[in-house]
Amino acid sequence: MKTDKILLDHGSGGKISHRMTRDMLLPVFNNPILAQLNDGAIFELNGQRVAFSTDSYTVDPIFFPGGNIGELAVYGTVNDLAMCGATPMFLSVALIIEEGFPIEQLEAIIAAMGQAAEHAGVSVVTGDTKVVPKGMADKIFINTSGIGVIPDHVDVASHKALPGDAVILSGSIADHGVSILARRAGLSFETSVQSDTAPLNHMVAAMCAVGRGIHVLRDPTRGGLGTALNEIAEKSAAGIRIREDRIPVKPEVAGLCELLGFDPLYLANEGKLIAFVAADDAAAVLEAVRADRCGRDAAIVGEVVADHPGKVFMQTRIGGTRIVDMLAGEQLPRIC
Amino acid sequence: MKTDKILLDHGSGGKISHRMTRDMLLPVFNNPILAQLNDGAIFELNGQRVAFSTDSYTVDPIFFPGGNIGELAVYGTVNDLAMCGATPMFLSVALIIEEGFPIEQLEAIIAAMGQAAEHAGVSVVTGDTKVVPKGMADKIFINTSGIGVIPDHVDVASHKALPGDAVILSGSIADHGVSILARRAGLSFETSVQSDTAPLNHMVAAMCAVGRGIHVLRDPTRGGLGTALNEIAEKSAAGIRIREDRIPVKPEVAGLCELLGFDPLYLANEGKLIAFVAADDAAAVLEAVRADRCGRDAAIVGEVVADHPGKVFMQTRIGGTRIVDMLAGEQLPRIC
Repeated sequence: MKTDKILLDHGSGGKISHRMTRDMLLPVFNNPILAQLNDGAIFELNGQRVAFSTDSYTVDPIFFPGGNIGELAVYGTVNDLAMCGATPMFLSVALIIEEGFPIEQLEAIIAAMGQAAEHAGVSVVTGDTKVVPKGMADKIFINTSGIGVIPDHVDVASHKALPGDAVILSGSIADHGVSILARRAGLSFETSVQSDTAPLNHMVAAMCAVGRGIHVLRDPTRGGLGTALNEIAEKSAAGIRIREDRIPVKPEVAGLCELLGFDPLYLANEGKLIAFVAADDAAAVLEAVRADRCGRDAAIVGEVVADHPGKVFMQTRIGGTRIVDMLAGEQLPRIC
Repeated sequence: MKTDKILLDHGSGGKISHRMTRDMLLPVFNNPILAQLNDGAIFELNGQRVAFSTDSYTVDPIFFPGGNIGELAVYGTVNDLAMCGATPMFLSVALIIEEGFPIEQLEAIIAAMGQAAEHAGVSVVTGDTKVVPKGMADKIFINTSGIGVIPDHVDVASHKALPGDAVILSGSIADHGVSILARRAGLSFETSVQSDTAPLNHMVAAMCAVGRGIHVLRDPTRGGLGTALNEIAEKSAAGIRIREDRIPVKPEVAGLCELLGFDPLYLANEGKLIAFVAADDAAAVLEAVRADRCGRDAAIVGEVVADHPGKVFMQTRIGGTRIVDMLAGEQLPRIC
């Protein structure tokens, strides 16, 4: 599709986003660190490997079942750093606020950010506040950027999946996406679905402590599990085979997805990870994931295969196999 | 003033902004690095002092005489790092774009960012793009965050001004503010005033190479020279005495300020710095500033005095003395 205007799809995290990044941004900001397109940049500072990540949060509604934009912004960047294998340490917080925004709500958001930073064990060390006239932004947008250090024994990246790797998923999918959807559809009182927003850095530290064979870490946020697996398949030039019956989906999430016409494979998660782990280490790493409060329902949901590089296949519940493609456009704008 | 809603003044960089930072943000994100409130956070990573800074850019109009939001966003964060005495190295870029924004304009902005990064000698290593539905943001907002390393011999901070220090200003003030003002007032074709947006890191490197006595570096952006000097006076518990006749103001800038009713002391600069330098080093440092393309009009505009700690005084052209206070509210929203 050719267009001369920015579409919602350009921010979806799907195919059109990727194309814009590849065609418009990479050629201009041309450097090998950016070109890796991991969840964060990885470089050396004084002999220490450092991860650096940024995300802006524009979620609508800003308060949703299970959280608000504040903790989402903290955990989102904490998790991006953790997916680089880094120990998150320092965050920046930049607020763009619409004139007239209630100070009481701002205080609630800031309080949630403070608690989230404490849970994750990171310090907010610098910030910025801009206020724009009424109607020039929708309530509040938050950018967080973060810095973490990568322990010597950790070496993960999206292109490192190898045939034989087990694919571990840390829990049920689509909880965040459905919590936002339900709230927008006015169903919030009829459902108990809550966002899974949570920090994953403690889980990652425990995983890396027991297994040296962790090749890829990824949090399937925008675009969901389906898009994240496709990115890994493409970057690793590997085939990925998953089993539908192994992927945890809460019954109420599955029900709402059916009701509203969404596929949970493409809905956002904000407290889940996928790990690609050498077969020998998979059991120990899975155990470490399950020992975390956010990983109790973790499962091995698939494996990397040598054939069909770049493709993701799913063995369905009824026994067939279907290709899981990358999402083309935007299922749900302003999900994070 | 007590209010239950966010006002434009909360984002002004003046008194109300400072109060919000002190009363709402510092108590929640309580840590000694943030509490210093420098242009960026300074901490050690593996024995290396690192500076980390963030800023969101919401300037209106996004294209203005002398630049656009893209280079402003790159130079702004580069300069914040330079004001920590750091060598800027890595930037993140996070875009929030309104649906329907012309791709041609986005390309022009990205191209300007690429050129700016090249001029400043920094790499854009990670990024994020969000698109919000039409009407939910005004065209485009850009956040940049950045990381730099601080050479061993450099040690600057806003609280380090000492009695006897010379106050060096690198050039004429209010150019950026007036260029935006003139554009908004529809005067752009009647004036030659251009924004001074420029990278200051090369100037800072040259200054630090010749003088060990540099105590404070600061770029007087939002709130202008008047606000920046007040912050330094307060943090250093020092009195600052400046001379109006030494402060360069371009005639066309002074004229437009008079026409539009603004005080150049409080208008934003995006390519100027002030340095507080021990008297013995002041001449050499001034020479280094003047050798830079952006520092030709540099001058010593004042000095730090032992009396009246926390206050800024200006000896006016006609020989009187007036107090230069911190700006209370917002002279000009969306200036950067």
